[in-house]
Amino acid sequence: MNKNRLEPLGMPHAQYDFGSEFEQQARQADPGRIDRWLIRQLRKRISASKVAIALWDEPDDKSRPATVRFRDRGALWQTLGNPALHFGDLYAAGRITVHGDLMAVLDEAYAYLDRQKVKGRLLAGARPIAPDPSESKQNIHHHYDLGNDFYRLWLDRDWMQYTCAYYPEAEMTIEQAQALKMHHVARKLRLKAGESVVEAGGGWGGLALFMARHYGVKVRSFNISQEQVAYSREWAKRESLADLVEFVEDDFRNISGTYDAFVSVGMLEHVGPGNYEQMGRLMRRVVTPEGRGLVHSIGRDRPGPLNEWIDKRIFPGAYPPTLREMMGLFEPSGLSVLDVENIRLHYAETLRAWLARFDENVEMVRKMFDEAFVRAWRLYLAGSITAFVRGNLQLFQVVFARTGMNRIPSSRKHVYAEGG
Amino acid sequence: MNKNRLEPLGMPHAQYDFGSEFEQQARQADPGRIDRWLIRQLRKRISASKVAIALWDEPDDKSRPATVRFRDRGALWQTLGNPALHFGDLYAAGRITVHGDLMAVLDEAYAYLDRQKVKGRLLAGARPIAPDPSESKQNIHHHYDLGNDFYRLWLDRDWMQYTCAYYPEAEMTIEQAQALKMHHVARKLRLKAGESVVEAGGGWGGLALFMARHYGVKVRSFNISQEQVAYSREWAKRESLADLVEFVEDDFRNISGTYDAFVSVGMLEHVGPGNYEQMGRLMRRVVTPEGRGLVHSIGRDRPGPLNEWIDKRIFPGAYPPTLREMMGLFEPSGLSVLDVENIRLHYAETLRAWLARFDENVEMVRKMFDEAFVRAWRLYLAGSITAFVRGNLQLFQVVFARTGMNRIPSSRKHVYAEGG
Repeated sequence: MNKNRLEPLGMPHAQYDFGSEFEQQARQADPGRIDRWLIRQLRKRISASKVAIALWDEPDDKSRPATVRFRDRGALWQTLGNPALHFGDLYAAGRITVHGDLMAVLDEAYAYLDRQKVKGRLLAGARPIAPDPSESKQNIHHHYDLGNDFYRLWLDRDWMQYTCAYYPEAEMTIEQAQALKMHHVARKLRLKAGESVVEAGGGWGGLALFMARHYGVKVRSFNISQEQVAYSREWAKRESLADLVEFVEDDFRNISGTYDAFVSVGMLEHVGPGNYEQMGRLMRRVVTPEGRGLVHSIGRDRPGPLNEWIDKRIFPGAYPPTLREMMGLFEPSGLSVLDVENIRLHYAETLRAWLARFDENVEMVRKMFDEAFVRAWRLYLAGSITAFVRGNLQLFQVVFARTGMNRIPSSRKHVYAEGG
Repeated sequence: MNKNRLEPLGMPHAQYDFGSEFEQQARQADPGRIDRWLIRQLRKRISASKVAIALWDEPDDKSRPATVRFRDRGALWQTLGNPALHFGDLYAAGRITVHGDLMAVLDEAYAYLDRQKVKGRLLAGARPIAPDPSESKQNIHHHYDLGNDFYRLWLDRDWMQYTCAYYPEAEMTIEQAQALKMHHVARKLRLKAGESVVEAGGGWGGLALFMARHYGVKVRSFNISQEQVAYSREWAKRESLADLVEFVEDDFRNISGTYDAFVSVGMLEHVGPGNYEQMGRLMRRVVTPEGRGLVHSIGRDRPGPLNEWIDKRIFPGAYPPTLREMMGLFEPSGLSVLDVENIRLHYAETLRAWLARFDENVEMVRKMFDEAFVRAWRLYLAGSITAFVRGNLQLFQVVFARTGMNRIPSSRKHVYAEGG
């Protein structure tokens, strides 16, 4: 980061592709005329692209920042059929490789998919995603129960935050930026010692423990990931915070009681727009008349489903809402939006830190899983950087209270009082 | 204001009703049985109210903060038929009087209308308001061309701002708070000397001149109020800013060119949700790829039309949108929302300052217009205080840029850097 601004960073591309071992695999049959015709058509379609594409027997184009290689006929044909879905799987399997700058490839890929989406927009829509508690449990298990040890390899070491960090100044470590994110959230909520907080979706417990430690609040944190709750409870004991923080293994829809603050960081993505009104009524019910709330979520400027491959392999059932869609939480429920901040570029920065640490520990990941997992996960992290830099994804923090609640500070200065 | 927080203030009620001269008018015929029965029904309906209601021959209820008196049969019957519409006219005409605290009455009235609205919600909806340029011109003429001299009597004396001021600290004058509002807007837009700004709806020109004077920007300001534009041009000459600020008497829909910043403070209320998509496309078109924009507008937490009386007598065609409705500006147009701030209670404070100054100059207003105008205008100002304090109305400032614009500061600290 330069000049106190978050900027897209170029990255040395040597960092960005593994998979040279695939080069050693058995050679494919030579391409036929149909393969050569198909790749010519594809080259025409992406003629403005800086990225080269090649069949398995063609050389790299050294004049371009990257060459994407289809390593067998099936890889080429599947990609042409549904690039959004198959590119990820084929890349993970090493049936597509990238020599050179993976970020440049992802940037082109997003631009290509954006153009397709504009054409295909009228086909979108359909029933809003609305997983019920049992579907939510499966979806969450798929992603968050990959093993706490895996996430510990590349998330920040202090608070295990698997959500967007906050980089108000240049050159911070991920540990600093995650701590500042939690301060940012706590300051927006104006937490005071002795207050009660309820959290919907607590991850490994870091935010709940942080708020208790630094703001002296009592927290009840709801989470349906069994592994995460077990981890959180152990952690609370180690930190001697078990009297202030209670981790509840239950769906947030079962929250009862009232609290001075409601907080949900990185859960809304899994709720589904079809459930927002229900969630909004719950938020209204669980905050006191003078209570405050904050929802932090990945979002979009225009409505659209999550990338198909991410939905299938990484985050089943996830949906990043537009701000308009997010208003489904507040508008029908007697809640008033006080503050919205879009910190999109902070997520790109966060992901860069995660990816760098992932790469430092890649041998450990390879041992835990396999090469295909490594490639899939790196594609997901790198692709997410691209999505946040391009503005395909946003990150919204929304502060709310009940309509007509008048204990509101006269400016947002308090959020920035201590270098936040 | 106390404790650095904007709070609803009680007001000495002696301030709040004129019209004792009406008491001298010819007495009405005595109420009949039907009038007495009707007022009993009305008392039952508002039995929880602190406010007393009385027929023209009944005494004040001194145990209550206020007594609302129907001064003839027509006043009672019309109010029962459509209180939202007729209360204002009857009050203005002195056929309804209030002894005691008008603010308490307005608070009860809003609570009553809220309950009615909940029942009547399903009847609402209909075609979104979408005035065309010629309708807009009529609507704007109705309100803003009442005479510059009239507005000068009670708006701030420095910048003639007829929009919500900004009170970050307790105990400011309206002049200070309006200047801080304009700094707040300019800081959110990160205006730099030499940049170009286009303004949609410029009022009497104060914001345009302020930005030119304090930030060294060039401004083109669009306004369809002939009186305001004439005033603005004179003012620019007096301030020797005519080379930096151009006032254009034209509909904002005719803005051409591109600018570093787009700003619209207090105009969206007159645009109508049916025109938001068109306005959003325009905003996208007129900002440079790295440009910023700000829309400042009265809004609502839940959708609903403006009060019927305000719509008829004060602001024809005006509509305060919810944040969800406002997203119609951004979502379809390739614009990204960066920041939303709700400064509702600042509008209550602004209106208190206006009402106090109005009262100081009430004899002048009475000479310019008549007693009914004075009563109507005071009801509008006092009623608006109530609406903002209760949360019936909100005030949203929304900062935007084109989707994917990456020259974004890494925090909102700059808005607060100089005591803003």
